[in-house]
Amino acid sequence: MKFASLKNETPDGQLVLVSRDGKFAVVVPELASSLLDAMQRWDVVAPGLQQRYEALNAGELSDTFAFQPTACGAPLPRCPQWLDASAFLNHGRLMEQAFNTPPIPDFDTIPVMYQGASDDFLGPTQDVPLPSEQDGIDFEGEFGVVVGAVPMAATPEQALACVRLVVQINDWSLRALGPREMKSGFGFLQAKPSTSFAPIAVTPDELGAAWRDGRVQMPLHVLWNGERFGEPHGGEMNFSFGELVAHAARSRKLTPGSIVGSGTVSNSARSAGSACISERRVIEKIDLGDIKTGFMKFGDRVRMQAKYDDGREGPFGVIDQRVVAPN
Amino acid sequence: MKFASLKNETPDGQLVLVSRDGKFAVVVPELASSLLDAMQRWDVVAPGLQQRYEALNAGELSDTFAFQPTACGAPLPRCPQWLDASAFLNHGRLMEQAFNTPPIPDFDTIPVMYQGASDDFLGPTQDVPLPSEQDGIDFEGEFGVVVGAVPMAATPEQALACVRLVVQINDWSLRALGPREMKSGFGFLQAKPSTSFAPIAVTPDELGAAWRDGRVQMPLHVLWNGERFGEPHGGEMNFSFGELVAHAARSRKLTPGSIVGSGTVSNSARSAGSACISERRVIEKIDLGDIKTGFMKFGDRVRMQAKYDDGREGPFGVIDQRVVAPN
Repeated sequence: MKFASLKNETPDGQLVLVSRDGKFAVVVPELASSLLDAMQRWDVVAPGLQQRYEALNAGELSDTFAFQPTACGAPLPRCPQWLDASAFLNHGRLMEQAFNTPPIPDFDTIPVMYQGASDDFLGPTQDVPLPSEQDGIDFEGEFGVVVGAVPMAATPEQALACVRLVVQINDWSLRALGPREMKSGFGFLQAKPSTSFAPIAVTPDELGAAWRDGRVQMPLHVLWNGERFGEPHGGEMNFSFGELVAHAARSRKLTPGSIVGSGTVSNSARSAGSACISERRVIEKIDLGDIKTGFMKFGDRVRMQAKYDDGREGPFGVIDQRVVAPN
Repeated sequence: MKFASLKNETPDGQLVLVSRDGKFAVVVPELASSLLDAMQRWDVVAPGLQQRYEALNAGELSDTFAFQPTACGAPLPRCPQWLDASAFLNHGRLMEQAFNTPPIPDFDTIPVMYQGASDDFLGPTQDVPLPSEQDGIDFEGEFGVVVGAVPMAATPEQALACVRLVVQINDWSLRALGPREMKSGFGFLQAKPSTSFAPIAVTPDELGAAWRDGRVQMPLHVLWNGERFGEPHGGEMNFSFGELVAHAARSRKLTPGSIVGSGTVSNSARSAGSACISERRVIEKIDLGDIKTGFMKFGDRVRMQAKYDDGREGPFGVIDQRVVAPN
């Protein structure tokens, strides 16, 4: 199934089912008022949603309308917990050099993860107001999963079975603020403004063979102001989403609708490019001896879209946003 | 005003107004269904709540009942954001020695703060299931504030004006897991299970002179298994709550009902004792050369109650909880 949330006057938005081809949508208020509502009552509402989704794809529904990504907020405009890992070790190792921070202990064997704000997510085409160009404005292309209820101390296998939806994320970062927060040991807070999401959240079965080993096996195509920036592949993730969710639930339960992110998608092959500016900058320093690329300016745009390995467009839709001065 | 939330079948509980003497309560469903609902519509509902509160205190209401703290969840059983500082520098400096972590940069001038889980808070007398006694189970007695809508980049003065309620907190910590998470730079996650709250949240005016300079000017009395552990005073906080809330809102807004905590209350005078075990342990090491005190075991209880300087009981009620094995 494919879900999106139309912006309305409520904080959780209006849930719609989106057809498999991404062209049509239908509201389902008699089944669930919002995607968060559906997550909280998943076992009860999933069969009815599945039936409606099949009827939508078969062209059997009369109350459909054209799906407009610009009308969408994040699939979950707010959620109980947002936990973001750094599960691509290639990215983490480059960032240690970029930030000049000491090596992270047990980085190869224990995931690192921070807790982010989950009360104010941004939709795929919303402008992104940020306080200052001096903060080192950067994007981070990621994948993530939305989980059902995860009990405390779940195993990775149990945790993977709790995955309900897969999402595509831009975890905005303010790089000038990150190193001090890392060195404090308390983790990212000011360095992480509101996070953005592609319009469509999908059940794992929609991905077919591109959902394998608890990973999204797709390249994430990133363009900055219309120019190619990279298309690193999600399959190179060093921990599975099962391992990440289990890590998050080690000492507390996760309530339904919580989101766990992969961290910046990153490949060891330089030819893949990058999904964040900071990584490109440190590669320039290592490979060329000098940093050439600056961070984002107000008015800049970033576009992110996952595609299948054969080049077909992915199921999540497109993130295409502009950074703007604070209102 | 004094508010509490009775446990019911909904995640946000049933809002009640509690009389100033803490003896009586009244439900106010026609004004607000939950405290979170009241926070989100504060300007609209506050006058009606104030009127009802005055009638409750004057004995003019017929539908009151005896207030039972054991029937309460946290005042906000879940909230949009939970951000916890370490604003008592005496505590932070001792913890650096306890954890053997490097000095935090700019610790005297810039608050440190982590983001915690805000989807599953515990009430004042609920048992606390934790995965293992080997994790170094510890309590942390704190004060905190509940804010209204805080715009991005609010000043400390603006932020202080957004404070709606004051709360008393036990920020449970798993000390065996903390140092690795600090050294990762990503901050606390597994080291911070669900947080507990005293039953009553109060508007700042309820504190009288004990709310001054954006600080709670009260000692927090802590007992572990019935024995005195400490009563450090909230007035020694090195940053005001205005400064802490502004720090949290540097690069993003906070939505109504978000909670900002002080971190463990801690005084430089050894005679005040401590509000967490880890701090006592490092003091033992420094002053006596040897750590004598272990962490909590399943079945142990901790009791926390703020009192006024003249010894009168504080307005928040009592946290009195038992740590138990996972269910």
